[in-house]
Amino acid sequence: MATVPLLSDDQLSPEAAVVFADIREARQTDYVNNFWRAMANEPATMAPLWERLKGLMGPGHLDPLTKEMIYIAVSVANACEYCVHSHTASAKAKGMSDEMYGELLAVIGMASQTNALSTALQVPVDERFKA
Amino acid sequence: MATVPLLSDDQLSPEAAVVFADIREARQTDYVNNFWRAMANEPATMAPLWERLKGLMGPGHLDPLTKEMIYIAVSVANACEYCVHSHTASAKAKGMSDEMYGELLAVIGMASQTNALSTALQVPVDERFKA
Amino acid sequence: MATVPLLSDDQLSPEAAVVFADIREARQTDYVNNFWRAMANEPATMAPLWERLKGLMGPGHLDPLTKEMIYIAVSVANACEYCVHSHTASAKAKGMSDEMYGELLAVIGMASQTNALSTALQVPVDERFKA
Amino acid sequence: MATVPLLSDDQLSPEAAVVFADIREARQTDYVNNFWRAMANEPATMAPLWERLKGLMGPGHLDPLTKEMIYIAVSVANACEYCVHSHTASAKAKGMSDEMYGELLAVIGMASQTNALSTALQVPVDERFKA
Amino acid sequence: MATVPLLSDDQLSPEAAVVFADIREARQTDYVNNFWRAMANEPATMAPLWERLKGLMGPGHLDPLTKEMIYIAVSVANACEYCVHSHTASAKAKGMSDEMYGELLAVIGMASQTNALSTALQVPVDERFKA
Amino acid sequence: MATVPLLSDDQLSPEAAVVFADIREARQTDYVNNFWRAMANEPATMAPLWERLKGLMGPGHLDPLTKEMIYIAVSVANACEYCVHSHTASAKAKGMSDEMYGELLAVIGMASQTNALSTALQVPVDERFKA
Repeated sequence: MATVPLLSDDQLSPEAAVVFADIREARQTDYVNNFWRAMANEPATMAPLWERLKGLMGPGHLDPLTKEMIYIAVSVANACEYCVHSHTASAKAKGMSDEMYGELLAVIGMASQTNALSTALQVPVDERFKA
Repeated sequence: MATVPLLSDDQLSPEAAVVFADIREARQTDYVNNFWRAMANEPATMAPLWERLKGLMGPGHLDPLTKEMIYIAVSVANACEYCVHSHTASAKAKGMSDEMYGELLAVIGMASQTNALSTALQVPVDERFKA
Repeated sequence: MATVPLLSDDQLSPEAAVVFADIREARQTDYVNNFWRAMANEPATMAPLWERLKGLMGPGHLDPLTKEMIYIAVSVANACEYCVHSHTASAKAKGMSDEMYGELLAVIGMASQTNALSTALQVPVDERFKA
Repeated sequence: MATVPLLSDDQLSPEAAVVFADIREARQTDYVNNFWRAMANEPATMAPLWERLKGLMGPGHLDPLTKEMIYIAVSVANACEYCVHSHTASAKAKGMSDEMYGELLAVIGMASQTNALSTALQVPVDERFKA
Repeated sequence: MATVPLLSDDQLSPEAAVVFADIREARQTDYVNNFWRAMANEPATMAPLWERLKGLMGPGHLDPLTKEMIYIAVSVANACEYCVHSHTASAKAKGMSDEMYGELLAVIGMASQTNALSTALQVPVDERFKA
Repeated sequence: MATVPLLSDDQLSPEAAVVFADIREARQTDYVNNFWRAMANEPATMAPLWERLKGLMGPGHLDPLTKEMIYIAVSVANACEYCVHSHTASAKAKGMSDEMYGELLAVIGMASQTNALSTALQVPVDERFKA
């Protein structure tokens, strides 16, 4: 169904195999999800992408769960089916409660509505917001 | 520049005037931003929208700053210039540091990239994500 | 500001001049808006585009005002500033009242919200909708 | 397949059950579609959403079928598979003929094309459209 | 699954049958893909669309493969599942190598990321880019 | 106008100054455009982004001009005003002729139209495209 084969472990290039090993180490699970099995066809893009993702999605000035919820928000607005599923699963695994998810959905819905209204009305940006 | 006039306080319908008073009360400022001055032309849509927004964006299972950052993420993906400016200003007013903003930007950029890659590759959703 | 010059009447190629004459005839006004002055740089694309647009936006199984409102809806969702302005102006010229515009805005806002919720929840399509 | 369970009637919270009863009453059918069965997990968002939707999509300054077609247009531009299917079914149920649907599709396609051209060319908005 | 029936050859209107014959002639294959079998329900839109597509996607100032890759890029950004699959297949048929596809993916991902960052930061356009 | 200050050369952090020097070296010009002056506020994101961009947009399996045109296509679909301007300027600097630009615009417009039609019709993907 993908435009490229989803590579099994024994089909990996050496460079992709290194990334898979690091994914397994970082996530403490043997499971590698389909996105990376597709990306393994493009090791030159995959390796730095994983490096950045690993560095970014851990603890920092924002906590990992907040980052997953932001990721979901972007993925919904971009209508990415795979990403919505995978990052909703990640957010739940990182402790997103049903109540938190409910509020996340409400904010995404509200933002989508006021985005459309602002664009339809072509509201000029307030001077004070530009400071 | 907007498709409707931005209403000054003395141009408001009684229903819109009530909403403006509540906005000022809730935000503890006399300033009412352009979005509401445009929406004041549509009081039937404006009043329940403000009610929901007020109820939603305060403290809950997610904190107000997290909600503003989610709002920014959606607004960026929808390319809403007004919303990006107004909610970035709100997030800063609610305590978003430069470091937090830097991570927010990085997550939005990363999500946009992997959304595109997932869609380009048409990666099938893992069975375990559907559970 | 555009990526191409906005052509004045005396800069038009013969093919573009024919289209301009037809726009003026069809709209019964001497004014030709900036979109066509930009498109005049691409006469091979412009001529068939104008033909189709002229044929499509007149009376048919849907009335011209309904078509303009649909056009606005698409333009808002695609965040096209120019198109939102030009088609809102057209809709008003074709008789869209303030009340109709208010409902149009409300529907666009509502659809944007439920689009986002449906995508976030990944709601499966009901069998009966596929018939 | 959804990120939440689609709730059957006997799994509903009291608040969601009230909404389901009202949906059945308003639509004069026992069938409740998957969107509401998913939303039933979020009764606090669901109840006011249904209220607004019910109030908005009935007769007003725009007729119900026009509103459904506007809804389809937004849903297509937002690439919402569920929404395209459900609102196309609703529009047909409200009397959209094959000929009307053909024109709707043509307008959506045309708008998508000229949206892209306007954005690519960065056409400046005509002064007269800003009035 | 489509909102209209996918027409078999013996269900075509005379106008659609002419288009199908021309598709087969132009592509030198008996196979007609689902997009056209759906569009065959709208012969008035289908016929000029095919004419333009046929004229556009052949050799010109850009080569056919470059055009297919541009088509893929737009389709990804618009989250069009059908279009991503069909134009990726076309690009491969026209000679897109795995290495070219890898670079195409990398550019699409990069552009999506910097698009989001530019919009989030609301970077003003450099004067020199407007010339 | 941006959400962050556009940094002048004497406001740069050491890390950002290194990137600016490399931009100037790679492009053989003293001019550094606004995107990088905004990104200079986020050196941790900026440095690897520039590295990847520099590596990607040069000659490879696709030529640099083709990559710029793909970049434009994505930027248009994402409605990124800054990106449309900057990459159109880059494409012209790399040799895009008026005729090539005309075809690029036509392909982007056509893809946007058929994307919308495919999504509106919910055309199922042909089995042969999934191979």
